[in-house]
Amino acid sequence: MKEKFPKTRAFVWTGKALKLLDQRLLPHKTVWRVCRTWQDVTRDIRDMVVRGAPAIGCTAAYGVVLAERKKMLPKAFEGLLKARPTAVNLRWALDRMRRVWEQGGNLEREAIAIEKEDREANRRMGQWGAELVGSNATLLTHCNTGSLATAGLGTAFGVLWTAFQQGKVKKVLATETRPYLQGARLTAWELKNERIPFELITDSMAAHFMKTESIDGVFVGADRIAANGDSANKIGTYSLAVLAAHHHIPFYIVAPMSTVDLSTPGGQDIPIEERSMDEVTTFRGQRLAPQGIKARHPAFDVTPAVLISAIITERGVARRPFVTSLHSAAARLSEAVPL
Amino acid sequence: MKEKFPKTRAFVWTGKALKLLDQRLLPHKTVWRVCRTWQDVTRDIRDMVVRGAPAIGCTAAYGVVLAERKKMLPKAFEGLLKARPTAVNLRWALDRMRRVWEQGGNLEREAIAIEKEDREANRRMGQWGAELVGSNATLLTHCNTGSLATAGLGTAFGVLWTAFQQGKVKKVLATETRPYLQGARLTAWELKNERIPFELITDSMAAHFMKTESIDGVFVGADRIAANGDSANKIGTYSLAVLAAHHHIPFYIVAPMSTVDLSTPGGQDIPIEERSMDEVTTFRGQRLAPQGIKARHPAFDVTPAVLISAIITERGVARRPFVTSLHSAAARLSEAVPL
Repeated sequence: MKEKFPKTRAFVWTGKALKLLDQRLLPHKTVWRVCRTWQDVTRDIRDMVVRGAPAIGCTAAYGVVLAERKKMLPKAFEGLLKARPTAVNLRWALDRMRRVWEQGGNLEREAIAIEKEDREANRRMGQWGAELVGSNATLLTHCNTGSLATAGLGTAFGVLWTAFQQGKVKKVLATETRPYLQGARLTAWELKNERIPFELITDSMAAHFMKTESIDGVFVGADRIAANGDSANKIGTYSLAVLAAHHHIPFYIVAPMSTVDLSTPGGQDIPIEERSMDEVTTFRGQRLAPQGIKARHPAFDVTPAVLISAIITERGVARRPFVTSLHSAAARLSEAVPL
Repeated sequence: MKEKFPKTRAFVWTGKALKLLDQRLLPHKTVWRVCRTWQDVTRDIRDMVVRGAPAIGCTAAYGVVLAERKKMLPKAFEGLLKARPTAVNLRWALDRMRRVWEQGGNLEREAIAIEKEDREANRRMGQWGAELVGSNATLLTHCNTGSLATAGLGTAFGVLWTAFQQGKVKKVLATETRPYLQGARLTAWELKNERIPFELITDSMAAHFMKTESIDGVFVGADRIAANGDSANKIGTYSLAVLAAHHHIPFYIVAPMSTVDLSTPGGQDIPIEERSMDEVTTFRGQRLAPQGIKARHPAFDVTPAVLISAIITERGVARRPFVTSLHSAAARLSEAVPL
């Protein structure tokens, strides 16, 4: 029997070019962009044509393949690395490609391996995470962590999806995720496509529903997990973690080992990208706020380890103290054994 | 010396009609609508041409004046009361108008008195609240509580404004307040007009800035305060109260006594209006989310008294236990003496 699997793809490597689904236009339009150079890939990562930490890692790897063909290495490593600062998967993928390049290895084969491994990691995370979900569960998620953010099922979304396939999900509450509306535009689209029952809420409603409805767990992704477990993720994640703790709701981070950065000791060491304030004050060219005002736009925040119930990677479910469990997971072969 | 005062007005009684500044179009357009009947007023309250609990009370009172002239009393009392369910100022103003009507009093004079008293209450709340603000303060506010929401300075906004006039405000963080964007559209407009330094943030950023910047206090309004101090206010308020408690930041409710409803024992007894999901999934006719999905839109939430540092009314600063301090304030003559 063929395994059921979501059909959505964020990127497709054709052997000659990297096709990216333009996520800025979803869910209104389905437009594929074709990147033929590493500069195209860099620009599209920076401009959020493609986003989501694992997807950024995969697409950067293909960017390296394109750069090699135009003899633009090692320069392209630097350019790609600068595209976005917070998601460590970008650096992780580039480091891996650089090692293969330095050893004269096959870069295209390595990029394809990175993509394939991410897809398999998604599947495993989905299984580990779904074990934490009881029956008839209402689960809350933030931002987009599905097929649009990864090479496969997704991270947190993969857990929701797997638990739903197992018949355990009553409904999902999806936060719209201001300012970029990844929840309203992308997660709602994926949940709808997968026929998972869900309700879209504003970020500001999460606390209200934690109090007035029974929410069984919060599952979110991560852009960088420090050695001590502090986790950077989409702005609003830290807020949800504090609210979940207040309401005694388990709060789970779901991310592959490529998101774990043991060289970053703690959350204070993670660079937080500040994006344009226009992304807060406008929507598709229409202003939401008066002209000439100041807005803030940190794209990520850091959730301290103490607020995280567990970190789910493809190698199992890491519990506190994360400094031990994450090191142990990193040292282990990639077999799916519980930590 | 003439006292400094914001020039913005949400509504103007002409003696023959009630003019309402259409807040749905702000800050893009300044359009005044003219209500000549109580039905006009009811519709405009329901459709949020005018909003903000005290402003709703004042405009409903003028609606009664218009109804009397067309011999539509007592029917209009019922129609106006149904316009919006949560803000108790609406019921409070209608009850007051009904008593005057039953006694054969002058309704127009009473409506003007309600407006004038609200303006004076704003001034006093501003003074009481500003006493709680130290020097060089960074203050956070939610939704819109300024001249657009009241007959005068505003409630929470009046505190920010008064503290700013006293030279104590370094800056204000204003949440955009999804889904209706009262913060981005209205509060940002009022703060800009009053030249108060501020930064607009998404609701999801509040926790991040509570952690990474020094925030000295959160000031918000209320739509109904129960006898025990539980307070209904714009959706997202409860979230901010939990986050403020977690970060040891004082959390203040600012509202006139007309918002205090001693006949409602606690928060569980306050009706929460659910508005159209279109207000979550669209912005000015543009869709933010896929077609055919379900979204939720509770317009208010309830903050339990335990998370509220103090309730600032025109009669002073009420502290816990609110069941005592609010009853005592209600019993007292309206002199501005501390509770």
